[in-house]
Amino acid sequence: MTDTIERPGFVERNRPGRAKMKAAIFVEKNRIVLDEKPIPDVGPLDALIRITTTTICGTDVHILKGEYPVEKGLTIGHEPVGIIEKLGSAVEGFAEGQRVIAGAITPSGYSNACLCGCASQDGPRMKHGFKPMGGWRFGNTIDGAQAEYLVVPDAMTNLAPVPEALGDEQVLMCPDIMSTGFAGAESGKVRIGDTVAVFAQGPIGLCATAGARLMGATRIIAVDRVGERLNVARAMGADEVVDFSKVDPVEEILRLTDGRGVDVAIEALGRQETFEAALRVLRPGGTLSSLGVYSSDLKIPLDAFAAGLGDNKIVTSLCPGGKERMRRLMDVVASGRVDARALVTHRFKLDDIEKAYDLFSHQRDGVLKVAITP
Amino acid sequence: MTDTIERPGFVERNRPGRAKMKAAIFVEKNRIVLDEKPIPDVGPLDALIRITTTTICGTDVHILKGEYPVEKGLTIGHEPVGIIEKLGSAVEGFAEGQRVIAGAITPSGYSNACLCGCASQDGPRMKHGFKPMGGWRFGNTIDGAQAEYLVVPDAMTNLAPVPEALGDEQVLMCPDIMSTGFAGAESGKVRIGDTVAVFAQGPIGLCATAGARLMGATRIIAVDRVGERLNVARAMGADEVVDFSKVDPVEEILRLTDGRGVDVAIEALGRQETFEAALRVLRPGGTLSSLGVYSSDLKIPLDAFAAGLGDNKIVTSLCPGGKERMRRLMDVVASGRVDARALVTHRFKLDDIEKAYDLFSHQRDGVLKVAITP
Amino acid sequence: MTDTIERPGFVERNRPGRAKMKAAIFVEKNRIVLDEKPIPDVGPLDALIRITTTTICGTDVHILKGEYPVEKGLTIGHEPVGIIEKLGSAVEGFAEGQRVIAGAITPSGYSNACLCGCASQDGPRMKHGFKPMGGWRFGNTIDGAQAEYLVVPDAMTNLAPVPEALGDEQVLMCPDIMSTGFAGAESGKVRIGDTVAVFAQGPIGLCATAGARLMGATRIIAVDRVGERLNVARAMGADEVVDFSKVDPVEEILRLTDGRGVDVAIEALGRQETFEAALRVLRPGGTLSSLGVYSSDLKIPLDAFAAGLGDNKIVTSLCPGGKERMRRLMDVVASGRVDARALVTHRFKLDDIEKAYDLFSHQRDGVLKVAITP
Amino acid sequence: MTDTIERPGFVERNRPGRAKMKAAIFVEKNRIVLDEKPIPDVGPLDALIRITTTTICGTDVHILKGEYPVEKGLTIGHEPVGIIEKLGSAVEGFAEGQRVIAGAITPSGYSNACLCGCASQDGPRMKHGFKPMGGWRFGNTIDGAQAEYLVVPDAMTNLAPVPEALGDEQVLMCPDIMSTGFAGAESGKVRIGDTVAVFAQGPIGLCATAGARLMGATRIIAVDRVGERLNVARAMGADEVVDFSKVDPVEEILRLTDGRGVDVAIEALGRQETFEAALRVLRPGGTLSSLGVYSSDLKIPLDAFAAGLGDNKIVTSLCPGGKERMRRLMDVVASGRVDARALVTHRFKLDDIEKAYDLFSHQRDGVLKVAITP
Repeated sequence: MTDTIERPGFVERNRPGRAKMKAAIFVEKNRIVLDEKPIPDVGPLDALIRITTTTICGTDVHILKGEYPVEKGLTIGHEPVGIIEKLGSAVEGFAEGQRVIAGAITPSGYSNACLCGCASQDGPRMKHGFKPMGGWRFGNTIDGAQAEYLVVPDAMTNLAPVPEALGDEQVLMCPDIMSTGFAGAESGKVRIGDTVAVFAQGPIGLCATAGARLMGATRIIAVDRVGERLNVARAMGADEVVDFSKVDPVEEILRLTDGRGVDVAIEALGRQETFEAALRVLRPGGTLSSLGVYSSDLKIPLDAFAAGLGDNKIVTSLCPGGKERMRRLMDVVASGRVDARALVTHRFKLDDIEKAYDLFSHQRDGVLKVAITP
Repeated sequence: MTDTIERPGFVERNRPGRAKMKAAIFVEKNRIVLDEKPIPDVGPLDALIRITTTTICGTDVHILKGEYPVEKGLTIGHEPVGIIEKLGSAVEGFAEGQRVIAGAITPSGYSNACLCGCASQDGPRMKHGFKPMGGWRFGNTIDGAQAEYLVVPDAMTNLAPVPEALGDEQVLMCPDIMSTGFAGAESGKVRIGDTVAVFAQGPIGLCATAGARLMGATRIIAVDRVGERLNVARAMGADEVVDFSKVDPVEEILRLTDGRGVDVAIEALGRQETFEAALRVLRPGGTLSSLGVYSSDLKIPLDAFAAGLGDNKIVTSLCPGGKERMRRLMDVVASGRVDARALVTHRFKLDDIEKAYDLFSHQRDGVLKVAITP
Repeated sequence: MTDTIERPGFVERNRPGRAKMKAAIFVEKNRIVLDEKPIPDVGPLDALIRITTTTICGTDVHILKGEYPVEKGLTIGHEPVGIIEKLGSAVEGFAEGQRVIAGAITPSGYSNACLCGCASQDGPRMKHGFKPMGGWRFGNTIDGAQAEYLVVPDAMTNLAPVPEALGDEQVLMCPDIMSTGFAGAESGKVRIGDTVAVFAQGPIGLCATAGARLMGATRIIAVDRVGERLNVARAMGADEVVDFSKVDPVEEILRLTDGRGVDVAIEALGRQETFEAALRVLRPGGTLSSLGVYSSDLKIPLDAFAAGLGDNKIVTSLCPGGKERMRRLMDVVASGRVDARALVTHRFKLDDIEKAYDLFSHQRDGVLKVAITP
Repeated sequence: MTDTIERPGFVERNRPGRAKMKAAIFVEKNRIVLDEKPIPDVGPLDALIRITTTTICGTDVHILKGEYPVEKGLTIGHEPVGIIEKLGSAVEGFAEGQRVIAGAITPSGYSNACLCGCASQDGPRMKHGFKPMGGWRFGNTIDGAQAEYLVVPDAMTNLAPVPEALGDEQVLMCPDIMSTGFAGAESGKVRIGDTVAVFAQGPIGLCATAGARLMGATRIIAVDRVGERLNVARAMGADEVVDFSKVDPVEEILRLTDGRGVDVAIEALGRQETFEAALRVLRPGGTLSSLGVYSSDLKIPLDAFAAGLGDNKIVTSLCPGGKERMRRLMDVVASGRVDARALVTHRFKLDDIEKAYDLFSHQRDGVLKVAITP
């Protein structure tokens, strides 16, 4: 269903003797440093973006800790806001100087996966015994956004102009956090009148809460243990909050629903405990929509799975990308339906990105997301 | 989403001093015996059916072995073909003497689950720490079909007249085997041009193969190790067969698909090995449609799950029931699209049902399904 | 797909010598009068409800004007709130004295249509050359809700208990107006980020506007010519309003969308002009979701239909009914997501219902909906 | 939802002094002639194909008759089989010399329409008061396939390699006829056990019949008046045929279905009579899937539309294109599920294409489709 879209050209472009830029580079486990790199070349289908604002994602912390493998020397980051600096020779429909975002996932548009309705999986199936997340290229298989400049591949598919009225921080959550969080509600097929539980209220969980609200759930139960996050959850649309450090969340959710369970449970952390709890609170026929990035095998307890006879679904979603998705998310922001600025709790210069990593990776000071400006 | 539909009346009906019938009764682990019971009363919404043909299901063997708990004294069996003997006082639209089938699962029609598009889960959510299969009542929570007479609850929802041209054995697979097997393809949302792998070619797996064919899959790969079953699989629609006793089925399916994997993998056995293999052969974005009744916890290997980022789905289906489902399945049979008679390999009188259990539970003599006639 | 559910019993029940009640009765074209009738009997599957609040629908005005034919002597009305007075002998799961609503459409639960996912079409296909709206029985094929008492058929399918915290007027819009209006958005499959136009802002159009908002549309354009209705439209979720008495609504909507058109256009009036305008503002691939009750043939202009090549859809919805639908809608009300009380502009005693018809049918005094209390 | 993808370059390429090729050119109403043109240039995203087999479509006859407007001088045709002669500078993943097909509709892959799941509508919304069929470019907005050479735009999205085992005529129906015909069944969401009526058994109607069969319909009723076409319909999967010159097709279909009507009716002609008949045979809740290219306004009779209350859908489909669609259709052919060679009734050299137009446009000699070879 998928075909290779490897673009070996990206490596060769970083040749010596070229104008330089600053970039946050993965050196080795526990070391991401700000260093210089040549400003990359632009292939015929690419666009070069001058980054104006970017941010750090939990996945970047996985990379930092060596839990998710990337090549040494790679620039990290997949959430770009910027200005088009240069367009590839075959790119039409855009102009240099336009302010744009690009999704964290950059589908080609022309792969079989894209043409089959599965654009995020726009890549080869197997590599070293692991299914790669095909469409995730920035900061994964090509240089990423935590830099002064970024090459956006398949620019006609991926560049989304930012409406003038919206500031950088207003659209900073669109490339990944909102797209992924909303996908949790969308893949769960939330309907008007649904009861939805969202496990973990980090940035993605908070956006899943907002997504469930957007789609018409009438009872949204947000689970976390950090009081401040539960407060933000209420602001994002939760009707009730459950502090799992104080009560058993499964028991509490069953109590709140008179034993019926929830229509959709969204997992937004990536741990066995939350996955299992999400499964246990489902009504017969309910759906577990999983957003977490797991780091070990999962167990499905027989009883929580009704021995396979519960008409339950477990669905996973990789962040949807592409310019149309970005356009729609910016419309959500422009309409005032969701204000994701509440998620930006700290701001750093690119020069201080190592400090930002330190703060963010240790989840200090109530950090939700940081804004990084070159 | 579901509400209780327990019908305590069923127990009281079996009072002494009544006309008797023969029935296959669960006595204790490893003992199902043919014994006498009173012919049951008929409540206002019920119908009493005189069984003309029935069969034994793999689930009945789970009950026999004590792997699935039912009350002692319960009549087993959930696959009835018969004649309406008596209609409840509030039942309209049917006539005594009509030949009918009823699905293995007997939804009420009026529960919230039914009205929410999830009719098979027509029951309470939790009981003794286990999610019951609400809509499965015959031979589970009320007396079943391996008897001379059967009470069909909510008769207006569940009785489906058999077209005159179809013999008992032609429709005997409709109540469970075809309904469940086809549901594997339906829940997997098989599309024209899909590649589908079906793991295990017992009766349900064979019907899943037929269902994938019916829905337009163009490459169907059937997996089993019994040569005769693989032959029947070809007759039911498989394009290729994989004998997992000779090759690693995951490697073989990836080889057959040039490394792309399958769009839909159907699990029809209920074991970790088949569940895991089904997960491993999925393309990114593919769906595992699970039909098996599991008897222990399941493991989801991290790599087979792409760490949660593969846009994969795991969906489970309980046999769809109700008269409209039965009508459609009998239409499939009447159209000649699928001939499930090939699955009936042995025939027994009800008097010999203990022998039938012995043959079937030991899978001797190439048995697929047995026909039992009172 | 559907089978007959005619219940001739209803006629015979109204025999002389019985306790009487007041009811609004269709006498002849342009005459609906308050008169006395016997309190009806209760069949085994029925419930008798003592009406506490009801209302008048635009469809009732069609009946009054002779535009929609019903039998003379029929009690009109299909939007009941009341107290269970008596339960049929086969009804379980409810108690006399419970406060309940029932949907305008009362599916049986057991028809083939119900079991096929099309519960509102729960009736025979053809009658006198016209496809009847099978599931619509109250005030159409059986006596309706504008009376002191109402028989609810198939009570286990149709009675929905009202949460204690909700007043009668809070749930009065659930049986028809909200269910139909929301269905406009649901059948249109509104998605996060969609642009939606809603033509006509009567009670149903206003609820369609609210439904589009509930499902995540980010740009909702409400069209009407009554200023007060456009104001209520804003309160119900419209982002922009178009007064078609001042501008051409097609041109204006294309202007507002930079020529792209809308993803979903909802027709909520039942006229050629609105149907055609809704078609003309669709983007390629967009959906016209039609709620109106038309009274003459419709024309599809060739250009508005892209000669059949626009990947457009035209979908129609009859008000979804059944207790689960009602439960969900009351959840929407209880959650505070939508407050339909703004639609109740006038209140009358049942004794004054003829005055209420006069006001409502002439659309005087800014009336949206009236509350009628026996 | 769509953005402009106009490629003005195509016109300028045909400059004088270049190598020439033969092409079927629209000169004026009723005149398509074989003439010489320069072999076109190849832009960076294009591929130049040397046509080995092509065919004539009913739409080409509309063009010939002046019923569908195209520019004078345009090469006609949109169903190419050929060999890659030259690849654009930015095209990767293909090799010169490969045998390929391209769909009649050539989506860009990168437009908002493509990224929104509506790839066939890959173009601007309005042009001269008419919604253009955005993605239909060959023989509509750019030079087409009835020539010795063809430029395929957005080649990475549109070129589909032909498996070696399949001959040109085996895949000749994939670009349009099979893709469109199957789309009739797909957009109608045909399910296992459905009853489907297909109005008109020309090449597209025959493929709609095959598509309904592929998707699991168990009763397929084909309507036409040409005996030979009804015979081919049976071979393609029809269970019953209705000759509308002998019986009223609406009455006959209602008779055949015991008055219930059909789940899905597919219109494959583009006339008021067939559109209206398709609407009249629908069951409540059924879907009219329209494939025809209409040439005048349509009327929806009030009764056939149940006044808007029948939960009916009218859906239209433009031929799905793109390489993944082509891959899947060629898989259908390779699997032997459908053999579309029966549709090729006549063969011509490109030099004789004017004779082919004469035969085909007058529907002489039992012609279904012609194969044209340069």
